[in-house]
Amino acid sequence: MKTNKHIYLDHSATTPVDAEVIAAMSSAMSEGWGNPSSTHSDGRNAKFLIEEARERVAGLMNSSPEEIHFTSGGTEADNWALRGIAHSLKDKGNHIITAETEHPAILDSCKKLEKEGFKITFLFTDRKGSIHPHDLEAEITSETILISLMHSNNEIGTINLIHKFAEVAKEAGVLIHTDIVQSYGKVPIDVKQLDVDLASVSSHKIYGPKGIGALYVRSGIGIEQIMFGGHQERDKRGGTENVPGIVGFGKAAALRAERLESDSLTVRKMAKNFLERLSEEVGGVSVNGHPTHRIPGHLSLTFE
Amino acid sequence: MKTNKHIYLDHSATTPVDAEVIAAMSSAMSEGWGNPSSTHSDGRNAKFLIEEARERVAGLMNSSPEEIHFTSGGTEADNWALRGIAHSLKDKGNHIITAETEHPAILDSCKKLEKEGFKITFLFTDRKGSIHPHDLEAEITSETILISLMHSNNEIGTINLIHKFAEVAKEAGVLIHTDIVQSYGKVPIDVKQLDVDLASVSSHKIYGPKGIGALYVRSGIGIEQIMFGGHQERDKRGGTENVPGIVGFGKAAALRAERLESDSLTVRKMAKNFLERLSEEVGGVSVNGHPTHRIPGHLSLTFE
Repeated sequence: MKTNKHIYLDHSATTPVDAEVIAAMSSAMSEGWGNPSSTHSDGRNAKFLIEEARERVAGLMNSSPEEIHFTSGGTEADNWALRGIAHSLKDKGNHIITAETEHPAILDSCKKLEKEGFKITFLFTDRKGSIHPHDLEAEITSETILISLMHSNNEIGTINLIHKFAEVAKEAGVLIHTDIVQSYGKVPIDVKQLDVDLASVSSHKIYGPKGIGALYVRSGIGIEQIMFGGHQERDKRGGTENVPGIVGFGKAAALRAERLESDSLTVRKMAKNFLERLSEEVGGVSVNGHPTHRIPGHLSLTFE
Repeated sequence: MKTNKHIYLDHSATTPVDAEVIAAMSSAMSEGWGNPSSTHSDGRNAKFLIEEARERVAGLMNSSPEEIHFTSGGTEADNWALRGIAHSLKDKGNHIITAETEHPAILDSCKKLEKEGFKITFLFTDRKGSIHPHDLEAEITSETILISLMHSNNEIGTINLIHKFAEVAKEAGVLIHTDIVQSYGKVPIDVKQLDVDLASVSSHKIYGPKGIGALYVRSGIGIEQIMFGGHQERDKRGGTENVPGIVGFGKAAALRAERLESDSLTVRKMAKNFLERLSEEVGGVSVNGHPTHRIPGHLSLTFE
């Protein structure tokens, strides 16, 4: 007799919270509950926890801690990147390039910007979900101020050639943002090597808590605020910091740094076995997206 | 010999997180970590926790749960109320009334709106920190679309006559928002009795976690989004919900509902005793703000 075992297969939507993350957050709420903007010892304790987490989140993408700005999640990071850069550079141009396959946080922000007078080009992908650098290059005009293309796709798992897009962007003198929510902590990410100007990450896709994310803004890049009030995040994002969320995100990032390589092998093998068994026992199964440029362990399938 | 006991007196900046709140959040992260937008059982579990919390947060201000929209904190709630209503009603008028004593989340949002073409009137308070309804009435023009005045002041503790301001607003057909961050959970709040259209609250001022707040939007009031992407919060606020934060906020609100009355007496008595001893043993002490219309337990002092 088979037992009815619950198997969770929706890790691109969200992940369980690691027990070590929960413990770190509980401890931060017991011991580090002060307001990080207060200069007394309770405030300074909380501030210390934030800066430790910032180093961990930065470490997993090889950025400087000063380039990491905590937000309420990947959605706020995406909103901020697009609105913040669009409005910072609106005197320079009004054209933004993205793709029809981006996350709703990007697409809906772009639709809002369109209403405000910006022009948006939505690139198409090929059948494998890939965008070609020459297709991007062909759309750049003298009005283009920003390119936003995701590092990997949440639905079909295809990883894009972001460093190639960044080359095209640099050549044209255009800023480039990438949503790395689905790749961060799953494949090695190095924002310096990718040569991107902005990148969005989220905690709850890497066994951290929901409600916390971050925007990497390359040092020297000016970006308008979208959340006003208070001097938090070096005057860039107002509001008392989500200390437990930030601590949990930091812990999750530290754990991913340790486990990324071995987990990647494990889930790749699991996906391979699962696909083989499906093909043998069910049949008529094919993988959507790119056959090799994929997030490890990600399967998007078509059944005949 | 006196022992060196650490006494925390900065509860308007933030409060320690209640142990029951921490326990509720840990449990939500262990058991309710699914994505509330997922329709499978893990998602539905998380969705259930959110709706339970929404009822609790609503209950503490006598609103309907449907009128509560979770945000990343009081700052986002204030930003949203001002920007969302200003841009919703910009065809009707471009004038907003607030006060020079509001929280930076209000003041900085107003400064941003000024740059976008809105006209802002900043009311002055009297020496007790009070604003007079007739001063508000005198500033309303045919262009006025929104009034935003706080329920009580974080620095000097004065409670405003919001229901009187609401009367003036209703008479003029103008919407009224109130930042109740410092009053919610400390004095009885009834948004129906206050007759306000929007109200901002924050969790970390009532022994809940940081990084979570809410905006009450009276049923039937249209408000533009400020966070785009996803269908969360009835299509009004995109982004995966901060489930642990929401659960913690809900637990904190439920605890305040139980303890508000007795805690209010306790802290009022503590503040009275503290002031008496300061006057006797130090001398030359006077209370800033209103002598009686104050947040219970709040002391803002001038030393000669």
